[in-house]
Amino acid sequence: MRWLGCLFLGVAVSGAVAEPGADWQLVIHGGAGGISRESLSVEREGQMRETLERALQAGGSVLGRGGSSVAAVQAAIVVLEDSPLFNAGKGAVFNAAGANELDASIMRGEDLEAGAVAGVTRIRNPVLAAHAVMVGSPHVMLAGTGAEQFAAEHHLELVEPEYFRTEERWQQLERLRASERGADESGFGTLDVDDQKLGTVGAVARDAQGHLAAATSTGGMTNKRYGRVGDSPIIGAGTYADDRSCAVSATGHGEYFIRLSIARTICALVEFGGMNLADAAAEIIGGRLTGLGGDGGIIAIDAGGTIVAEFNTAGMYRGWVAADVPPEVRIFQDD
Amino acid sequence: MRWLGCLFLGVAVSGAVAEPGADWQLVIHGGAGGISRESLSVEREGQMRETLERALQAGGSVLGRGGSSVAAVQAAIVVLEDSPLFNAGKGAVFNAAGANELDASIMRGEDLEAGAVAGVTRIRNPVLAAHAVMVGSPHVMLAGTGAEQFAAEHHLELVEPEYFRTEERWQQLERLRASERGADESGFGTLDVDDQKLGTVGAVARDAQGHLAAATSTGGMTNKRYGRVGDSPIIGAGTYADDRSCAVSATGHGEYFIRLSIARTICALVEFGGMNLADAAAEIIGGRLTGLGGDGGIIAIDAGGTIVAEFNTAGMYRGWVAADVPPEVRIFQDD
Repeated sequence: MRWLGCLFLGVAVSGAVAEPGADWQLVIHGGAGGISRESLSVEREGQMRETLERALQAGGSVLGRGGSSVAAVQAAIVVLEDSPLFNAGKGAVFNAAGANELDASIMRGEDLEAGAVAGVTRIRNPVLAAHAVMVGSPHVMLAGTGAEQFAAEHHLELVEPEYFRTEERWQQLERLRASERGADESGFGTLDVDDQKLGTVGAVARDAQGHLAAATSTGGMTNKRYGRVGDSPIIGAGTYADDRSCAVSATGHGEYFIRLSIARTICALVEFGGMNLADAAAEIIGGRLTGLGGDGGIIAIDAGGTIVAEFNTAGMYRGWVAADVPPEVRIFQDD
Repeated sequence: MRWLGCLFLGVAVSGAVAEPGADWQLVIHGGAGGISRESLSVEREGQMRETLERALQAGGSVLGRGGSSVAAVQAAIVVLEDSPLFNAGKGAVFNAAGANELDASIMRGEDLEAGAVAGVTRIRNPVLAAHAVMVGSPHVMLAGTGAEQFAAEHHLELVEPEYFRTEERWQQLERLRASERGADESGFGTLDVDDQKLGTVGAVARDAQGHLAAATSTGGMTNKRYGRVGDSPIIGAGTYADDRSCAVSATGHGEYFIRLSIARTICALVEFGGMNLADAAAEIIGGRLTGLGGDGGIIAIDAGGTIVAEFNTAGMYRGWVAADVPPEVRIFQDD
């Protein structure tokens, strides 16, 4: 069974530039997947909701005092990266070699500046490294040890690889390894969607100056191998922001998101197709992604302040806050 | 001074599916940049033209006997990768560590399947590895040694890193290193566009069944560091193909191509904006890329068989062939 979920949060008053703090929105996600009430303990659900709310408060606080959407999405994502509950930063899933390999990207809608890091293993907050690439280098995407060297030169906090390890993620790897011993000779095994959780965290925001930003961070796919890169560090796939249309952060089965250039395509449908953001998101997630057989979702915000969360999975950890709306957190399709 | 170049090759008869070999088109490029008649010797120009023509013949021969557009773009690119004249495969530029790091991607318009490899140093023909990822793995993008391990397991030809080395590229690196000794403390130095050549090779094709494909291969940017990844292995940036709209392969200053999701954006403008391919390419290359300050170009083909080559540099190595048109090669804006 597939679910389609969508929400709107009104359309902000357009026209004159708002006073700092007078008009801003922030949406976050903590991954989509086969999240059911049965599989999620009350205790765990409470922890997830509390962490998502802290992330909203961190980003909302930046926006409330007139800060930029770029600063707000970073502040929100750092909270999720620092939590062991989400598949990003601490708590990232393990790859086939038993290591945590992290990806992140960020984009600024005002001038289309962007930054990304892929396959890093020692940067505590990959989203901050993506931002450093955006503002401190002529490049957009840095990978592997080169990205770590760059991060070190830009005084970002490096940690020992053990920092990212959590017992729960290790058990996920062990279960997936066990299931693969009966897999076919392709060597890719049977992927257990529940264990993979399609985990990613992300944020999109519109600040009081009307500028958009998007950012995404992930530990990728449990048991990934061969240096697999998913959609999270790919500008256009996992992350896109353009003040002319919208800002999008995606989570899901990354390969499908790359093939559809999901984030860019939704913004293009708004910009070139004249479609409103909610219809564009429904068309791409409910239509094309589902049609190809891919699972996941997106959060998005447009130039007018409309926010959307669209997914074709049973649940997506998500939340939003705005100048005139207190933080709200949702997990399931019907909540 | 900026140049805008564009060409059309008519519109193929639409409607009924053509007989194998009756109706197909192939366009290739070998990089764009500040190519001037003064800087290019007659001998060198002749070698470039001869190699581009061989690439057209290799791909055209596949299409002429009813082969797929996916097979044709690979056949054309292998010729360019094997030539020391172009910045892809043998003849790739050197990174800051004095090594050749190669990227490639490929996409099939029929079902949006795609494959890419990034930062590989031992795969003789990266475009074949990208294809192997597309057809032989559940993933789209593999990076670094993991990608090489995958290629080896799929029986692709591996070579010693020295295979890629050419004296000319080494001299380019030496010149750029020398110019950097006077550079600012950012450590990125002054990039010499002529020495960088914005080199990439690529191909787009439409086969007799009407299916589109695109592929791109590169050695990246001379003196690149920190594990920089350009647009060539990024689906949506350097390469995109969708039978509903068009197939695109890009070459140029990759960071700008990623920020604009150039290949996907051109196809989206055709699909969602209802613009014809030539106008869409002119809008994105002549308008947005030039507006951001980026240099380069694209080749593209649409579902109806219209082909376009658009660039804002003095020249772009390019050529085309079709069922009813013999191979033609061009280099400069006015030729």
